[in-house]
Amino acid sequence: MRIHNFSAGPSTLPLAVLERARDELVEYHGAGMSLVEMSHRGPRYDAVHHEAMRLVRELLEVPEEFAVLFLQGGATLQFAMVPMNLLHAGERGAYADTGTWAGKALADAAHHGAVYRAWDGAPYGYRRTPHSEELELTAATRYLHITSNETIGGIRYPQWPDVTVPLVADMSSDYLTRPVPWERFDLVYGGVQKNLGPAGAALVIVRRSTLEHTNRDLAAYLRYDVHAAKDSLYNTPPVFTIWIVAEVLRWVRDRGGVPAMEAAARRKAELVYGTIDASGGFYRSPVDPESRSLTNVVFRLADEDLEARFLEEAAAQGLSGLKGHRSVGGCRASLYNALEEESVRVLTEFMRDFQARNG
Amino acid sequence: MRIHNFSAGPSTLPLAVLERARDELVEYHGAGMSLVEMSHRGPRYDAVHHEAMRLVRELLEVPEEFAVLFLQGGATLQFAMVPMNLLHAGERGAYADTGTWAGKALADAAHHGAVYRAWDGAPYGYRRTPHSEELELTAATRYLHITSNETIGGIRYPQWPDVTVPLVADMSSDYLTRPVPWERFDLVYGGVQKNLGPAGAALVIVRRSTLEHTNRDLAAYLRYDVHAAKDSLYNTPPVFTIWIVAEVLRWVRDRGGVPAMEAAARRKAELVYGTIDASGGFYRSPVDPESRSLTNVVFRLADEDLEARFLEEAAAQGLSGLKGHRSVGGCRASLYNALEEESVRVLTEFMRDFQARNG
Repeated sequence: MRIHNFSAGPSTLPLAVLERARDELVEYHGAGMSLVEMSHRGPRYDAVHHEAMRLVRELLEVPEEFAVLFLQGGATLQFAMVPMNLLHAGERGAYADTGTWAGKALADAAHHGAVYRAWDGAPYGYRRTPHSEELELTAATRYLHITSNETIGGIRYPQWPDVTVPLVADMSSDYLTRPVPWERFDLVYGGVQKNLGPAGAALVIVRRSTLEHTNRDLAAYLRYDVHAAKDSLYNTPPVFTIWIVAEVLRWVRDRGGVPAMEAAARRKAELVYGTIDASGGFYRSPVDPESRSLTNVVFRLADEDLEARFLEEAAAQGLSGLKGHRSVGGCRASLYNALEEESVRVLTEFMRDFQARNG
Repeated sequence: MRIHNFSAGPSTLPLAVLERARDELVEYHGAGMSLVEMSHRGPRYDAVHHEAMRLVRELLEVPEEFAVLFLQGGATLQFAMVPMNLLHAGERGAYADTGTWAGKALADAAHHGAVYRAWDGAPYGYRRTPHSEELELTAATRYLHITSNETIGGIRYPQWPDVTVPLVADMSSDYLTRPVPWERFDLVYGGVQKNLGPAGAALVIVRRSTLEHTNRDLAAYLRYDVHAAKDSLYNTPPVFTIWIVAEVLRWVRDRGGVPAMEAAARRKAELVYGTIDASGGFYRSPVDPESRSLTNVVFRLADEDLEARFLEEAAAQGLSGLKGHRSVGGCRASLYNALEEESVRVLTEFMRDFQARNG
């Protein structure tokens, strides 16, 4: 039986993609070997690699002025590479501190450039993202870094910040669930293991003109311009991950692309928030309604004992991955692109049933 | 039909491992989902992750004083991380320049620490590795970096350098084909996509006492001590790659471990070098006999036309990946652990047959 998988990442993949990968894993298109055994310089892998990049460009409507990169090290390595590459002497990176992931991005960046906190969500309990007028940008700010969706805190930016400096965004947990207004961005990045495929890569999309001025006093792997010049084939890429990402992207395209994913994300989130809001306080959303995440719905029950029972009974009914992050506790339903609406219906039905029995 | 795959990496994997991965890809051990869809904090992935690390320790006889890490970015990112972490102010890293990969390690390191060339293979045409007495180490040298096997040049160190400073080795292309005398090393690293599994990770083995003194002024992903403290689960690991590495390591263990792999490497290499040496100059090995690689056998024919014909006819007979690296041309047979001796026999038979028809 296939489980309803609400895991925050790595996370559920389209069943059709997994089945196709299974069928092609040992013998790839009559090649007499697996794709993961082939040279990454050969024509077969090359086709997969460039199809993945082409589909990213098509689905997110990425203009030619941007380079599409697949790098290793997840979003975490990008916390270092962004300031390393983008910040020159005298320039500063601004960070909107909206929770766990924004905080990590800021702390890591501080080792590799002059950065500062342009907004502090702590006084607000990290329950919301900032409004544009709250962002305090100083002179010589090179970029404003935002975490478009906080996977752990369960908040998102309902609108992109309206500022005069270029945006840099960690979109790990809402990639491909919303369009990106490229004119406002210099760089977007995210781990692929939530909305795009299995773990093992970050998708980085960077403005090419930026690369003309990036720091060159870095080892090759840490330089965006090196990866861009080589189409992410400077060194051996994570072949399996990019192969499956290409398959997932094709699946997204066949389902109607980002507009369809965004609409589905809204429907799925509304189902869960609707159930929470209609529960008369049995379930509680700890975040401000305006900042509610569409992909990570965080909720609490009356106490930890009840939450533990909820999670246990949910698991017994084939609803998996609903435990909140260990740093905050509670419950969390991650509703990424590959999670079918049917799974959300089963969840909300269970939530109502559990309330009826325990309310 | 399964092809005989002599690719330099990514490279052939044990067929039994691929078949097992195929059988478990969609539904992992009755979990109702794929392993690549599960949280990396859950018990099932945790078991795989720690088994991979345990098997590395068992097979390479890694003492408790060393930490075993799986990191992303391949050996290439290690070219940066080694000097970043190990070199303090006033300390220098020595590099034995034996060819393409040693040269890249040195060039990358120069951006992140004080490093120098302790031996230059250029005057020798990179046809051999240095003898210990040729290595020119200066005062305050923190480590000597060696490339234990040059994948492109086709040379190896037949003996480990006998020096008074700790060794750091890139073992990407001969990992698990020879024992490592740990008392002489502070750190060993290598991409896994040659002898250990599919692309997507580097295996790093580092002396724990070293970590007490490494540089902390780095983003978390770039710090060995952070990864060691979290057993390589600081951030989301490349799940599929580590899963298959665990399977390959089990396959290696079941075949007799590193001693059996080393003996097989010698037999396989001897088959090819023997064919070259018995060809009366029809095939030529461009490297010094004492430094001949056991895993990457480089050879030339009389001219490029003949080489092109050789490669074409070989491919037609199911012998793949024999083209030399684009930077040097010629032919190369990579004989990693998962390549069966039978494949090498088919190759050498073809080599003799081709010579008989063209000699």
